[in-house]
Amino acid sequence: MDVLEMDRNFMQIAIEEAKKAGAIGEVPIGAVIVKDGEVIARAHNLRETTQNAVTHAELSAIQDACKEVGSWRLEETTLYVTLEPCPMCAGAILQSRIPRVVYGARDPKGGCVDSLYHLLNDSRFNHECEVAEGVMADECGDMLSSFFRSLREKKKEQKKAMRDMN
Amino acid sequence: MDVLEMDRNFMQIAIEEAKKAGAIGEVPIGAVIVKDGEVIARAHNLRETTQNAVTHAELSAIQDACKEVGSWRLEETTLYVTLEPCPMCAGAILQSRIPRVVYGARDPKGGCVDSLYHLLNDSRFNHECEVAEGVMADECGDMLSSFFRSLREKKKEQKKAMRDMN
Repeated sequence: MDVLEMDRNFMQIAIEEAKKAGAIGEVPIGAVIVKDGEVIARAHNLRETTQNAVTHAELSAIQDACKEVGSWRLEETTLYVTLEPCPMCAGAILQSRIPRVVYGARDPKGGCVDSLYHLLNDSRFNHECEVAEGVMADECGDMLSSFFRSLREKKKEQKKAMRDMN
Repeated sequence: MDVLEMDRNFMQIAIEEAKKAGAIGEVPIGAVIVKDGEVIARAHNLRETTQNAVTHAELSAIQDACKEVGSWRLEETTLYVTLEPCPMCAGAILQSRIPRVVYGARDPKGGCVDSLYHLLNDSRFNHECEVAEGVMADECGDMLSSFFRSLREKKKEQKKAMRDMN
């Protein structure tokens, strides 16, 4: 199995995580951490459910992976995430010394790996990552677009129902 | 009580938190979140104790504060922290919509509020913060300097003891 095929296989698991989020009304973003070819942590965005601002997919996966390996250093791991990380999650990737990050879709409004900043490749920090982007980007991005489209439609329907009631 | 006096009072509590970290061999950094003049969360760095990469003072305080107010939005709060936040913690501040951040010492190697980046004041993100820096900066910085000095001395003594044994 070549690297791209392996990356697509693990991104598929991150996509499944994202779908779990979407199914309960959370923005569909999922993440997986892999070590020695095995998934050691998988998580999805749970911000609304938990009402905890830091429960992004990557941050939860990083915490679970630290527990799994018994160390805050996640050496020899790869993190897969469906959307380009925000500053908090990019920072958590640096803090946990994850050496390789693979993400699906770019986030032009908040992404801090390629879009707004290059936080994972700044030699002034004490850690830098290898980054691969665009793995299954269409699948990852389409999940988000259709989630927000359906959210807008629901809001429109609610407004209409309110108008009809008055 | 004017703002500076209030800020010094709450920073003093953050310093007490930092000292709790230092007392158990953790890098001495402390944080406090205040709402309506009351401390709603206080935490210190626990990375070595927990072996969890994300247990920085700010991130733990933010999670506790979310639990306290029952929302991921920490509106009308101020976060006090002894050291300039790293990218992860600056990102968590943005994610939790904290409107005001007061920090003590600058971190020229990793600080992302003024030193390396200005993550809390980037209009491209969906949130910006009011920032006050330098409150009790000497006390905050001295704790860190003396912590690292004593760490270096311990290491030197250990090396000497090893040499004497051989």
